[in-house]
Amino acid sequence: MTTSSNTTVAEIGEQAIIERITRRLEMPDWVDVGPGDDAAVVKPPRGLREVLTTDALVDGVHFDQAFVPADAIGHRALAVNISDLAAMGAEPRAVLLSLALPATLRVAVLDGLIEGFLRQAAAHRAPLVGGNITRTPGPLVINVTAIGTVRPRRALERSGARPGDEIYVTGAVGDAATGLAILRAGATAPTVESACVLRYLRPEPRVRAGLQLSHHGAASSCVDLSDGLADGLRQLARASGVGVEIDAGALPVSDEARAWHTTAGTDWLETALGGGDDYELLFTVRPRHRGRLRGARRRIGDLPITRIGVVTRGADLSVRDASGCRGLPHGFEHFR
Amino acid sequence: MTTSSNTTVAEIGEQAIIERITRRLEMPDWVDVGPGDDAAVVKPPRGLREVLTTDALVDGVHFDQAFVPADAIGHRALAVNISDLAAMGAEPRAVLLSLALPATLRVAVLDGLIEGFLRQAAAHRAPLVGGNITRTPGPLVINVTAIGTVRPRRALERSGARPGDEIYVTGAVGDAATGLAILRAGATAPTVESACVLRYLRPEPRVRAGLQLSHHGAASSCVDLSDGLADGLRQLARASGVGVEIDAGALPVSDEARAWHTTAGTDWLETALGGGDDYELLFTVRPRHRGRLRGARRRIGDLPITRIGVVTRGADLSVRDASGCRGLPHGFEHFR
Repeated sequence: MTTSSNTTVAEIGEQAIIERITRRLEMPDWVDVGPGDDAAVVKPPRGLREVLTTDALVDGVHFDQAFVPADAIGHRALAVNISDLAAMGAEPRAVLLSLALPATLRVAVLDGLIEGFLRQAAAHRAPLVGGNITRTPGPLVINVTAIGTVRPRRALERSGARPGDEIYVTGAVGDAATGLAILRAGATAPTVESACVLRYLRPEPRVRAGLQLSHHGAASSCVDLSDGLADGLRQLARASGVGVEIDAGALPVSDEARAWHTTAGTDWLETALGGGDDYELLFTVRPRHRGRLRGARRRIGDLPITRIGVVTRGADLSVRDASGCRGLPHGFEHFR
Repeated sequence: MTTSSNTTVAEIGEQAIIERITRRLEMPDWVDVGPGDDAAVVKPPRGLREVLTTDALVDGVHFDQAFVPADAIGHRALAVNISDLAAMGAEPRAVLLSLALPATLRVAVLDGLIEGFLRQAAAHRAPLVGGNITRTPGPLVINVTAIGTVRPRRALERSGARPGDEIYVTGAVGDAATGLAILRAGATAPTVESACVLRYLRPEPRVRAGLQLSHHGAASSCVDLSDGLADGLRQLARASGVGVEIDAGALPVSDEARAWHTTAGTDWLETALGGGDDYELLFTVRPRHRGRLRGARRRIGDLPITRIGVVTRGADLSVRDASGCRGLPHGFEHFR
């Protein structure tokens, strides 16, 4: 059937929805059975560990269709999962997609979402091998499962930080939250050229950085930043049973973010610490392994990696700036 | 903190929710990293294929909290996924759980759900190795990913049926739909002793049957019955490019279901063909492989396996009874 821009998923029906997704898929030779059967059948990797993660985006919680284009929703749904693989030092291998669709969802939105999802899957060479579609009386929910591989004993766990380790972060912090603030402020077309807006709409999971940190045995612990730097530091410190001291002046904050917050009269440091959705990697390095980190950096390319603080004894989480030392702000709490 | 029967998930917060789930988990030795990190790390099975499936239950679509106890919701969320593995002839190995929770969900319901889920996981020796929790402004959504194993070239695909193959089904058809009808009719306590109600609330995925069909190379195709026998036949016929002819008199319908529909003045045949949620296996066998089926049956135990029809040339899907031959009714369509 032909669809107009207002056609809903309920009007085309389940089979047509599935076909709109699966007609675009190509399976690699290690996939024995792809989408369309009760389950997918794949040949597991030899000599490697498997890395498994699942994460969901919910309309109205993780994105707002008013200013997030459909393809960016699909991109982000996959990117947040790929970022979890990156934080383990894993290489993406395959993905599963489970959609809960409101009957009124427009087919054009579904198509855009799938387009963004599959482009991101192709960028990471992780084929969509299976999935599920159901209707929901509530908001659109996009649940993704991502499967990756890592060499035995090379996974980057969050529990390995020790007092004296140095703390690093990839890229910049607070860009995505600044991008979201720009979008919420209602700016129109020109904002798509904002690097901060792009960081929010289409985060690039740091797979290459995670792989190289794992390959070189450079990191003693690692997490990805989904709910902000303060939250990431808290997770890492709790899992490792340590404290942290962060140098506010060292935080990698982009010129655009600084300028925007200065103009808006808001606090760039607060955004750098508390702003979510950056999907950068936060990791620690033993001082004696700085050489390994140099080795990893040579292979990571031009992604900035910045030393932002040090792991401490005890459980204190503090940030130091010109005016002294204070406690880390609380991160985003999903249920409060 | 202490919780009363009215405490909500929003009141205890994300970290406490996660701890309520993970404190009960034990990991087998092939799990390097379990829940609590960015992703799980597992040793893949050697010499086997991996089977991957994902499926979601949505409150108000797949269950009604008015008459489905919390532990049954958790049981069913996992069982529908294990059933997909069973339909491939696979053995369950590990599961992931992704929950979208309304802020107002009571902790008591969450606890019950987790209890039912983990009991079913233990029954199938499939540890919960990872997951995710998010809030939602909409209904409770339980998304599960199940991972299993099957020997190379032994997966039961749905596309292998050929004209002349015999069609079989495990257990009984229509029991779960009858159980749902009994629950909807508002019966109280005594109904928990109804086998039909139990079939609806706590379906038992036919893992052993699937494994033995796979092991003996007995089935030319297989699907599980989630949306009714007619829907299963349609899926199998479409994937295999064949038709089917079903003998209405041969359908395994329980005495309880027959009696209930006779009393209620409803049509048991319609329920047997169209009623969903049975999670039985529907499969085909080449006539020359009847001996293999006998071999499988000896190992399956006392689960009934009934021949219900034959695969035909062409695309007709028909059911024959005393009054003649007619087309199969349409199955449940999620989006219409």
